[in-house]
Amino acid sequence: MNSEIRKNRMTDATVTVLKADNTPLANHEVVIAQTNHKFLFGTAAFDLVPFTNGTYEGEKQEQAQQRAEKLLALFNAATLPFYWARFEPQRGKPMTAQVQNAAQWCIDHRLITKGHPLCWHTLTADWLLSMSNAEILQAQIARIKRDVLDFRGLIDMWDVINEAVIMPIFDKYDNGITRLCKEMGRINMIKAMFDATHAENPSAILLLNDFDISPAYDILVEGCLEAGIKIDVIGIQSHMHQGYWGVEKTLEVLDHFSRFNLPVHFTETTLISGHLMPPEIVDLNDYQVQEWPTTPEGEERQAQEAIQHYQTLFAHPLVEGITWWDMSDGGWLNAPAGLIRKDGFSKPAYDEILKRVKGEWWTSPTQFITDSNGQIQFTGFLGEYELTCDGKQGSFSLTKEDATTIEIHI
Amino acid sequence: MNSEIRKNRMTDATVTVLKADNTPLANHEVVIAQTNHKFLFGTAAFDLVPFTNGTYEGEKQEQAQQRAEKLLALFNAATLPFYWARFEPQRGKPMTAQVQNAAQWCIDHRLITKGHPLCWHTLTADWLLSMSNAEILQAQIARIKRDVLDFRGLIDMWDVINEAVIMPIFDKYDNGITRLCKEMGRINMIKAMFDATHAENPSAILLLNDFDISPAYDILVEGCLEAGIKIDVIGIQSHMHQGYWGVEKTLEVLDHFSRFNLPVHFTETTLISGHLMPPEIVDLNDYQVQEWPTTPEGEERQAQEAIQHYQTLFAHPLVEGITWWDMSDGGWLNAPAGLIRKDGFSKPAYDEILKRVKGEWWTSPTQFITDSNGQIQFTGFLGEYELTCDGKQGSFSLTKEDATTIEIHI
Repeated sequence: MNSEIRKNRMTDATVTVLKADNTPLANHEVVIAQTNHKFLFGTAAFDLVPFTNGTYEGEKQEQAQQRAEKLLALFNAATLPFYWARFEPQRGKPMTAQVQNAAQWCIDHRLITKGHPLCWHTLTADWLLSMSNAEILQAQIARIKRDVLDFRGLIDMWDVINEAVIMPIFDKYDNGITRLCKEMGRINMIKAMFDATHAENPSAILLLNDFDISPAYDILVEGCLEAGIKIDVIGIQSHMHQGYWGVEKTLEVLDHFSRFNLPVHFTETTLISGHLMPPEIVDLNDYQVQEWPTTPEGEERQAQEAIQHYQTLFAHPLVEGITWWDMSDGGWLNAPAGLIRKDGFSKPAYDEILKRVKGEWWTSPTQFITDSNGQIQFTGFLGEYELTCDGKQGSFSLTKEDATTIEIHI
Repeated sequence: MNSEIRKNRMTDATVTVLKADNTPLANHEVVIAQTNHKFLFGTAAFDLVPFTNGTYEGEKQEQAQQRAEKLLALFNAATLPFYWARFEPQRGKPMTAQVQNAAQWCIDHRLITKGHPLCWHTLTADWLLSMSNAEILQAQIARIKRDVLDFRGLIDMWDVINEAVIMPIFDKYDNGITRLCKEMGRINMIKAMFDATHAENPSAILLLNDFDISPAYDILVEGCLEAGIKIDVIGIQSHMHQGYWGVEKTLEVLDHFSRFNLPVHFTETTLISGHLMPPEIVDLNDYQVQEWPTTPEGEERQAQEAIQHYQTLFAHPLVEGITWWDMSDGGWLNAPAGLIRKDGFSKPAYDEILKRVKGEWWTSPTQFITDSNGQIQFTGFLGEYELTCDGKQGSFSLTKEDATTIEIHI
């Protein structure tokens, strides 16, 4: 195993097993099993909204059920959709209840949820266009406050603002958010959105998220931190429709952001299993095709690249999460970006990632005999654990911070 | 004339001419003549250092004299060299006296001086390489304090820090400043350098200067302002060895910086009169050629582009200066970037810029008759003026702020 993965993702633990009377359970057989990762292995999970709201029927619902099971088998985190244009197409009629159903389903299935995004110029509400900038700001902040409050406890992690680097100079079409950002400036805009989010959910984890990996983005992060904005996590997109970055570029990108010593999430990771998008395309949205088939060679390539990308990121001390985008083929751009084909079968990339996430990087159930002090020692991956002994169970967390000694009462 | 030039560079003035006894000089003939521009028409003037220090001899000195005269005929501002590697090749032995001679010559000839640059990773002192980052910081700040103090009154405008966008990720070769910037971060580094400069010359005009015109630079400016750094002027390089930007791109660049409402200087403007540098060159310094001749077609093109570039910038309300880079052929990269050929003759671009700066955009000597209140009214370009009457002279400044009424005692 990669020594950096060993160093950054595992820890040595001493577990003391105590009986109900607080005396050690000495010389006894116990089984320890990991039940979750601390690291966030996530996916865009927009499909959960129709799935949990009875939108699908018959065979479609069955297929969605199968996709949901595949999701749960591999992932422990889900990104849910808050694109304003779709979330509230008519002002005052947000689809809060539907997304709450999806979020509740995630919680019930032990998935960490993230909302994406609260503020973005693309897919923002059309009805902002008739407003003054002061009114747009008011509406945007009201939208954030409403949604963050409505989802508190269901979603406690947010992509607060998406793609702020291009936001004020975005020139594809007029929209309220670009207008506002042009007037306010990026940093003031980010500050206002973070403040609004923080006000309604002070303990939520707040991300700045961008596809820009040029110095512009790391300078923006620096400027935000100088301005006192509390960024919890730096979000980096990596839509690789035009080809895998490779390890060197990935490490170089991480190097530029490492000096802030902030956690990094790879928030939108795409590797496709069909032909690559031509390199001359600048805005990925400009590539519109009727058919973009997955191919056997493409699926092999995708699997190899996915392993390499996940290994690189899982080994890096600052990365705390990777989100795959999308779970199934035929989502954004109709790209063969899924880990699951349109026919519902898993691709090799799914199997290979699963082999790591629930195999090589996972502490499988292991039997120990406690010593005379009721202790066992082991080295495990960071995350949640269950200890079983004579049919009784206790649970504990393995973290870098306090994993050397854990007491469990059985 | 371009209506924006009329609006932004001229003003209507009422001049009251008073006699020694403070009564109006009524119904009398006076002549008004502009003697200087408020707008900075500058040039890189490194040649003035050897010229004013007796480095040249015989014919070489004569040629330098002719170049200096051409400089004075066209320009009112000069950028003097402070590249650390050359200014202080051996630690503790700076060439202060030589550059002071050049600066004094500029002052004597009514040129506004600027020092370039106080902090830059390229051409920084080699002897920093053996130091720790703490020592490099100390040496860099000491260098700034010494030079800013030594030149106070001679140079009151500084490119404090050059190319901070690329500074921490510059990877061509190891150097002390990149190391330091990587550790401190760009904004903290800029703050330290601005603070040191400001401490020794609080009224100096301080520039941030960069060749980067991507969002990275305008985000950096935003971050610096958020961090409380007092940037007086935004410096934008425009080395167009690979071709003239054109009006549209120039205005687009200005548009990105306009929201700060800060003055802008085009600090390093290059338009060449030979073949263009190939577009695939990323770092201009990588283009090394033995010969790069000026050509008749190239000189025509250069002249046309220079007029257009100067007109665009002179018309823009936030631009307050343009510096040509270099004055003569054979400077940086051995490029035919000069307004003067190697043989000392002016190129068409020189003549065309001169026709604007001292012609179309210049208030030539004009005769007026004062009215019964001793007043004359005229519309003139912003800058310095001389009023002559019966062999006596008075001077005044024409500014946007208080140009409506000026009193002159003759």
